[in-house]
Amino acid sequence: MTVYLVGAGPGDPGLITVRGLELIRGADAIVYDVLASDELLEEASESCLLFSREGMGQEAINELLVSLGQTFERVVRLKGGDPLLFARGHEEAVVLEEAGIDYGFVPGVSALTAVPASAGIPLTRRGVSAQVTVISGHSASGEELDYDALAAAAGTLVVFMGLRALGELAERLIAAGKGEDTPVAVISGGTTAAQQTVVAPLGEIAGRAAVLVSPALVVIGDVASFSREPVAGACIGV
Amino acid sequence: MTVYLVGAGPGDPGLITVRGLELIRGADAIVYDVLASDELLEEASESCLLFSREGMGQEAINELLVSLGQTFERVVRLKGGDPLLFARGHEEAVVLEEAGIDYGFVPGVSALTAVPASAGIPLTRRGVSAQVTVISGHSASGEELDYDALAAAAGTLVVFMGLRALGELAERLIAAGKGEDTPVAVISGGTTAAQQTVVAPLGEIAGRAAVLVSPALVVIGDVASFSREPVAGACIGV
Repeated sequence: MTVYLVGAGPGDPGLITVRGLELIRGADAIVYDVLASDELLEEASESCLLFSREGMGQEAINELLVSLGQTFERVVRLKGGDPLLFARGHEEAVVLEEAGIDYGFVPGVSALTAVPASAGIPLTRRGVSAQVTVISGHSASGEELDYDALAAAAGTLVVFMGLRALGELAERLIAAGKGEDTPVAVISGGTTAAQQTVVAPLGEIAGRAAVLVSPALVVIGDVASFSREPVAGACIGV
Repeated sequence: MTVYLVGAGPGDPGLITVRGLELIRGADAIVYDVLASDELLEEASESCLLFSREGMGQEAINELLVSLGQTFERVVRLKGGDPLLFARGHEEAVVLEEAGIDYGFVPGVSALTAVPASAGIPLTRRGVSAQVTVISGHSASGEELDYDALAAAAGTLVVFMGLRALGELAERLIAAGKGEDTPVAVISGGTTAAQQTVVAPLGEIAGRAAVLVSPALVVIGDVASFSREPVAGACIGV
């Protein structure tokens, strides 16, 4: 009776971990995020019960996990990316613990590194960036973010789910002193066949990235200028 | 003639990606970091040439990769964690590109999320931390880090390879205004059988963590107080 909180990786099904794939194949039930690849679900056994979490609130997910954890030997909670970085995996773990159900974390490749990699962008680079700051676009509005501090922070700034808030983010960072010419890359559908990348200065990025669709990762800083197309015959992030 | 820059993951060999393991199994030559698990190298074919990079400078590694890339069909450069986060993967890629050799990035599970997960610690948590800042202990001395900004940054601060510089880091953060009672977790050998975790307030952590050995990851912030022992029968990060 164990619920495994498994990172599905950034989109490309080959980027799940070996352990994560084993758990999917041996699972009695799987509760999955929309962002987890359909190809991973095809690895489940024929008798495995599959539950999409689409449209479910966090409370309902918690209840489902407890109920499944009380019923089945091996339950997988499959989450996009990594289960503990902007993913509420810890909240679900605490609920399971309180219900007396064993659980385990199986980390995944986060969009944080994999999506920039798929556009040729390193998050750190000697002499260019020795620091990375990570935020979520969901907290771009409201008072949760300190834009003065973010504008002054050294290195690379990465924004998860940053497409919808991109205009506000760029405006507030510039107002707080971040250079309008700071390179920005917005990568939509990273590591999948649908991947599209737009690179532009901070002052122009919101307009230029308007053609992209979610989910998208935003990379702000000098490393964004390393962005490049995949080389024919090689793979980037695949 | 392709060199794949592959993330080996955080230590536990089950945390390499499916794609990374396939590439190891099909490689003609592998150049590996000390941090990559020996169990992963056992997956290579009998005819595969294995090169440890131990004791080699970056120049020598670059030359070896170019030479192997000109000679063999499939070369794997196996790096601990992820190849593009504090790992010089991009420097090696640029050298390969300049030599006209195809290359690809295969992201890995970074210690960034996996090592805290193995101690039960989430990097973000609603109402506790909505931001993560990542630095390397290698830049703790010298003028590369802005301690005033780091001390004032919201959320969680993660330090790669932070054990040796822990005393200086803690001292300078406190001098810059970070609370002495800020929870800190230091996790040595994360995700492996040798894992050890020490949790203490920032003002005491350097002395308390003196028993640990490198490699270690340092997590500074309220999320560190979620640290816990693995549950019997469950797996945390395994």
